[in-house]
Amino acid sequence: MTDLIAMGQAAQAAARTLAQLTTKQKNAALQQMASALEAATPALLAANAEDMANAAQLPTKFTDRLRLSAARIADMAAGLRAVAALPDPTATADRGWRNEAGLFIVQQRVPLGVVGMIYEARPNVTVDAAGLTLKSGNAVILRGGKEARASNVALAAVLREALAAAGLPQDAVQLIADPSRALANQMMRLTDYIDVLIPRGGAGLIQTVVRTATVPVIETGAGNCHVYVDQAADLQMAIDIVVNAKVQRPSVCNAAEKLLIHQAVAAAYLPALAAALTAHGVALRGDEAARAIVPSMAAATSADWDTEYNDLVMAVKLVASEAAAIAHINAHNTKHSETIVTGDYAAGEQFLTAVDAACVYVNASTRFTDGQAFGFGAEIGISTQKLHARGPMGLSALTTIKYQIRGNGQVRQ
Amino acid sequence: MTDLIAMGQAAQAAARTLAQLTTKQKNAALQQMASALEAATPALLAANAEDMANAAQLPTKFTDRLRLSAARIADMAAGLRAVAALPDPTATADRGWRNEAGLFIVQQRVPLGVVGMIYEARPNVTVDAAGLTLKSGNAVILRGGKEARASNVALAAVLREALAAAGLPQDAVQLIADPSRALANQMMRLTDYIDVLIPRGGAGLIQTVVRTATVPVIETGAGNCHVYVDQAADLQMAIDIVVNAKVQRPSVCNAAEKLLIHQAVAAAYLPALAAALTAHGVALRGDEAARAIVPSMAAATSADWDTEYNDLVMAVKLVASEAAAIAHINAHNTKHSETIVTGDYAAGEQFLTAVDAACVYVNASTRFTDGQAFGFGAEIGISTQKLHARGPMGLSALTTIKYQIRGNGQVRQ
Repeated sequence: MTDLIAMGQAAQAAARTLAQLTTKQKNAALQQMASALEAATPALLAANAEDMANAAQLPTKFTDRLRLSAARIADMAAGLRAVAALPDPTATADRGWRNEAGLFIVQQRVPLGVVGMIYEARPNVTVDAAGLTLKSGNAVILRGGKEARASNVALAAVLREALAAAGLPQDAVQLIADPSRALANQMMRLTDYIDVLIPRGGAGLIQTVVRTATVPVIETGAGNCHVYVDQAADLQMAIDIVVNAKVQRPSVCNAAEKLLIHQAVAAAYLPALAAALTAHGVALRGDEAARAIVPSMAAATSADWDTEYNDLVMAVKLVASEAAAIAHINAHNTKHSETIVTGDYAAGEQFLTAVDAACVYVNASTRFTDGQAFGFGAEIGISTQKLHARGPMGLSALTTIKYQIRGNGQVRQ
Repeated sequence: MTDLIAMGQAAQAAARTLAQLTTKQKNAALQQMASALEAATPALLAANAEDMANAAQLPTKFTDRLRLSAARIADMAAGLRAVAALPDPTATADRGWRNEAGLFIVQQRVPLGVVGMIYEARPNVTVDAAGLTLKSGNAVILRGGKEARASNVALAAVLREALAAAGLPQDAVQLIADPSRALANQMMRLTDYIDVLIPRGGAGLIQTVVRTATVPVIETGAGNCHVYVDQAADLQMAIDIVVNAKVQRPSVCNAAEKLLIHQAVAAAYLPALAAALTAHGVALRGDEAARAIVPSMAAATSADWDTEYNDLVMAVKLVASEAAAIAHINAHNTKHSETIVTGDYAAGEQFLTAVDAACVYVNASTRFTDGQAFGFGAEIGISTQKLHARGPMGLSALTTIKYQIRGNGQVRQ
């Protein structure tokens, strides 16, 4: 029987050791984990074959993510080595100053402690999360999707052996192998032992965690992103951006789902925009004004404005002004990524200021909202909440601060 | 009947206006609010007299905090003017850089949006919270203790009139005048409209909010702080720090509650430490080893190690090593403030690294954990959580970031 309290205590003890390791020690362990995964390829493939056999009836989209191959295992190992090459987010102080009493106050970056990850049946997340949390000095408790149970158990065993071989506490990485819902719910309320929960997966999973958890959650992922084509937009740039934002990878959260277009240029621009999207296989749904210009579009319903399709579908709406576009976006977006296409300076600046989202763009595709594209090296996820972290989260999102204060006998007057 | 949804919508609309104001406009409104409070002194005293009459049966400690006077109203006004003089936390960008694709990415500080404050019967918090949230560009929904209802209604009316006179949206400051528990619970779950909840008050209030809220909470306040007197401590410095940390203001969260002392110096130091504390009226409770040295102490029970007294009481424990002191602290502290008194370099550095708390000191009193003492100007509270903000919170704790990204047609490859 899984004893979550014991796991929490072990994670906390491991976290205290991890917080005091040097960067060199953590990097050596990451390298060891990478090599161990490669060496264990046959065993990992055998465990995964078991999961794949059980998942035979599930859709290809699902089993594609569940399947391991030698190449995918090599990718996981490469990912761990890439994390080893990144700067250590806890090896830095934000600032230091002397206060009036002469105390030297240093705002030091430190690990959060114990991270809980809840995710779907994607074995790569097991390795990814273990690497990112270790690099940032955190212990992790993993709870992956039940369909990936055998794969995750095998992966976690390899990672834990590698940790031990590197002289680190094995309990830096723990997996809840029992896939019961009750245990997942208990994990979400383990406030004495888990410092933060990061759900990774679809909107349903994330909403369940947000509603159930008492442990603080970093909400990630949902994206109902808009492209607004202003009246001062360059048509070709608008086409390039809308097409890229919609079709380059429609399944992800930074893909655009909605096209807003200023009514003054709609008659001139919309036919060309619609033709370009349709040529890429996008099914368009328009409001009444859009359909008056491009009658071949299906009719959008009010539900469309709040729907994340994650597919080659886009809804189109005409707006009377930039202000109307901004109001629509603020009413319907998921605070993820929004872009305006415009040649008008004031319109661009107003959009940057007034739109409420993690990432607001002028004249660029929303697809750039990503830790790699931002230059962060690794990405834990994309936060759509406002507290702690917002937008693409690099390793520093897995840290907090500690004030370290050096005195020579100061007392408060 | 109070319609919280309508209040939330009004707050959100106000927040969108506030986010675009200049610092000058916000400061002018703060000055107007300060003057309006002073001008309304008679009306405010009359409303407070009503609350005081209803609270006649309550303890002095309680009514002391509830009472307004002309001097206290002048203090509130001075507080608003002091906030006006502070830097605007949203008038700054953390950093900006160009990514590989040539996008210019600015990490801009922006207001959180709508802040919910839940607090006890202290009318000064109404004014304080309104000032801090306005300065940082946030709208606020206030829910104060029911015993201060008339005072809070009068204060909020004055503040809202001043906002309108300054040309700002009145709904930047809203008060839930109905003191029902059901309404407070609804407020704690108003995730569509409130971005963060900040409870201010005793441990009971804060725990209720943490347990009930689905809106993200910034937990503040609980302090079970330790002074560890190392074997290499200077005795006089140890006495000065322990006495200051315990008695200078025993009711507050950064006061020390526990004294740990290395067994190697206990026989030499404890009698003098105990005498100094006793001379300041502190009631001591010791473990067995401490009582063997100072038999006049009462016996500590296991509950003592986890108790925040907020009073002239201190529990004393002997430890066999610095490691034992650190282990005890990490097991029993509230992650607030901890200090070591030592002349040993390595012992001090180890304490700074290994103790898990927002503020960790060497050779200084825990009483310095405070926004003013840290030089932050204002203080929203002291966070004992790890996410978003930790330790004394200045105005920047009421902000988040937004990535503003300027391109010239970039699309993702």
